Amino acid sequence: MSKKRVAIIGAGPSGLAQLRAFQSAAAKGEEIPEIVCFEKQDNWGGLWNYTWRTGLDEHGEPVHCSMYRYLWSNGPKEGLEFADYSFEEHFGKQIASYPPRAVLFDYIEGRVKKAQVRDWIRFSTVVRWVEYSNDTGKFTITLHDHKKDYVYSEDFDNVIVASGHFSTPNIPYYEGFESFNGRLLHAHDFRDAREFAGKDILVMGASYSAEDIGSQCWKYGAKSVTSCYRSAPMGFAWPDNWEEKPALVKVEGNTAHFKDGSTKKIDAIILCTGYKHFFNFLPDDLRLKTKNRLATADLYKGVAWVHNPKLFYLGMQDQWFTFNMFDAQAWWARDAIMGKIALPADKAAMLADVKEREEREEASDDTKYAIKYQADYVKELVAETDYPSFDIDGACEAFFEWKKHKMKDIMGFRNNSYKSVITGTMAPVHHTPWKDALDDSMAAYLRN
Amino acid sequence: MSKKRVAIIGAGPSGLAQLRAFQSAAAKGEEIPEIVCFEKQDNWGGLWNYTWRTGLDEHGEPVHCSMYRYLWSNGPKEGLEFADYSFEEHFGKQIASYPPRAVLFDYIEGRVKKAQVRDWIRFSTVVRWVEYSNDTGKFTITLHDHKKDYVYSEDFDNVIVASGHFSTPNIPYYEGFESFNGRLLHAHDFRDAREFAGKDILVMGASYSAEDIGSQCWKYGAKSVTSCYRSAPMGFAWPDNWEEKPALVKVEGNTAHFKDGSTKKIDAIILCTGYKHFFNFLPDDLRLKTKNRLATADLYKGVAWVHNPKLFYLGMQDQWFTFNMFDAQAWWARDAIMGKIALPADKAAMLADVKEREEREEASDDTKYAIKYQADYVKELVAETDYPSFDIDGACEAFFEWKKHKMKDIMGFRNNSYKSVITGTMAPVHHTPWKDALDDSMAAYLRN
Repeated sequence: MSKKRVAIIGAGPSGLAQLRAFQSAAAKGEEIPEIVCFEKQDNWGGLWNYTWRTGLDEHGEPVHCSMYRYLWSNGPKEGLEFADYSFEEHFGKQIASYPPRAVLFDYIEGRVKKAQVRDWIRFSTVVRWVEYSNDTGKFTITLHDHKKDYVYSEDFDNVIVASGHFSTPNIPYYEGFESFNGRLLHAHDFRDAREFAGKDILVMGASYSAEDIGSQCWKYGAKSVTSCYRSAPMGFAWPDNWEEKPALVKVEGNTAHFKDGSTKKIDAIILCTGYKHFFNFLPDDLRLKTKNRLATADLYKGVAWVHNPKLFYLGMQDQWFTFNMFDAQAWWARDAIMGKIALPADKAAMLADVKEREEREEASDDTKYAIKYQADYVKELVAETDYPSFDIDGACEAFFEWKKHKMKDIMGFRNNSYKSVITGTMAPVHHTPWKDALDDSMAAYLRN
Repeated sequence: MSKKRVAIIGAGPSGLAQLRAFQSAAAKGEEIPEIVCFEKQDNWGGLWNYTWRTGLDEHGEPVHCSMYRYLWSNGPKEGLEFADYSFEEHFGKQIASYPPRAVLFDYIEGRVKKAQVRDWIRFSTVVRWVEYSNDTGKFTITLHDHKKDYVYSEDFDNVIVASGHFSTPNIPYYEGFESFNGRLLHAHDFRDAREFAGKDILVMGASYSAEDIGSQCWKYGAKSVTSCYRSAPMGFAWPDNWEEKPALVKVEGNTAHFKDGSTKKIDAIILCTGYKHFFNFLPDDLRLKTKNRLATADLYKGVAWVHNPKLFYLGMQDQWFTFNMFDAQAWWARDAIMGKIALPADKAAMLADVKEREEREEASDDTKYAIKYQADYVKELVAETDYPSFDIDGACEAFFEWKKHKMKDIMGFRNNSYKSVITGTMAPVHHTPWKDALDDSMAAYLRN
């Protein structure tokens, strides 16, 4: 019998976790399937692979990157550290808790360089279409190799979708957008806060993008930041030139009108209105449709597609845990594919699993509850594989501290440090307060 | 025998021409195939359907629109008038020669409203994939209906690709782009010149986009315009605050460096670097790969795909003639599909046709030659169908005059008027010089 073939779609944090999961089994002497990973970009790292491009890329494909220059992690690195590859192992020393993008990219890359899995990835290769045949029991994937400008198809026994869900912007319309005379963009297309120096900017939304992009613009010299919310204000102790307003009603010329009747003249509107789960390469029988929540629809154990469990999705949840959760999922998907974990033969049992997760998530809207809920999920998966177990409760503590630090000082929370739950060492306090650290390079960050 | 089914991909000027072509045959009592047109956007008009959106649209699909506010036709309307639907028929009077976007949109729409073909179009429907089966002799098209968020497939006997080739930007990289601190965008994402009022802008390129976007920015108050070219300057008599430079070499901070060693501090870079022929829904056996030229690769009569002449492409040429050429192509494709025009049974004969066109195009790089070359092409197609013949040489004369008017006064050429080759009447001179006409609405334009 020939070897199973497994396709991984995407070489970002989730896809790379999947490559590492298979490689670690091989390193232990296990027989693994043939693995092929397809990556649209010309390098790995997914969202963490920064590009100056916006809209469509050099090949005409939607740009994956939603990151911007000067981005620092908005949560402590102690909440996302790989259990099999610590920050200390990678950098040769403990580093401060909120690394800029380049530092985290280097860390992610370090593990997969060490694992030597780069040859498993076909770069600049876009998945055009996936189809499952009941006759053959295989998936046929149609691919566009942009390096050769060549379209071809291959068959696989399993498919793992690891293409992320923070790349396709959700862009609502508001009255007057079509006649606004300033700059109007979604967070997905935001690249350089310096462009907004001296400007009055409006950030629409009350979640992480609004908070962080507004803060970046403030840090790099925006004249004023106005943010607006639909349900509740972010409620941080904002600087004097930052004002939170209720929902936008309309724009007239360059004037924004809010629900409380107030107005503000603005130069730019940045829509921090979230992202869509978007899979333009999947037919309806394989395509996940879910809200951005902790318990995704139709995924057994949050990973296996209940309607065809030869198909897996990684990282499709809303996220407190990130890299380490992707790892837990990747190890679990690997073991399911390799037959070390048995999936229920009965679809009803898988649907019941999904339902139970949904109900448990909906039992409370408290933040601490949500963090613990996702911690329990990570624990559950880790316990079923050989992924190194780690102090997940300790990671929760870092998240709880982080939340407190943000409430205390939104422009200063990144000056705090936390203890690694992998190596047990305390992170150093960064040498420069975040608001004064304008150079986001790795060299500058590691100078501790 | 059941009716043939014909799919048209795109409801822009080319796709609408195709609908009108079939409808006009039906109106004459002919038996026409079943026609289904798929349009990604929620309205017809293609490029002429303006949106404030850039990058990805409300469904996560690439935005088709490359148009901007305040755009006026950059060539005389007398060169593009429909032979079966004059401007006078539509507006009830003759109108000035360089209509703004809204006026041209209204004109295009007028003809297809009259033809009552809107029901043939499935809007908000994206073609995901097309495949041809040698066994069945049919094309299977996989579609995503975004209104219902529903993916489905249907079979067709013929496919006509009318999706345009001015929607997927060609975006080159230059040293320093990744660290430029200003606004950096492709012409495809340019929407409102007022955003650049008071700014020093660099437009890269020396073709129509560079000329027109630079002119728009100049008209709406840019502090200065710098344009740069790789091969030759545009060479118009630019205003004092517009300078043409040789090729960009790199950007350092906000300073652009040019090939002649000169530099310029700039606030924004607008890449007017052209578009790609891009068909992410076609396998290699059906996918056109061509340069933007008058004689496209692999299209017999510039329309029929030589490798499978059940497939047609409209408007894939570089264009002097536009709407009327799309008409000529659409009428021709219709007659080929309806069996009124016989295609050569021999592929070699079709390839010879392509080769002859290529060689004839390459015989001269003179502009007048190129315009006449395309006029001859339009004449050739018109002669083979019942599309109303019209004074194509007269249209050429309008183009020649236009070229002269541009050399004389690049910011004033739109103040000229020309004679309709359809109705024979002279267009009125517009009531306001273009540079002073800041209101681009239809109401303002028609106030003559």
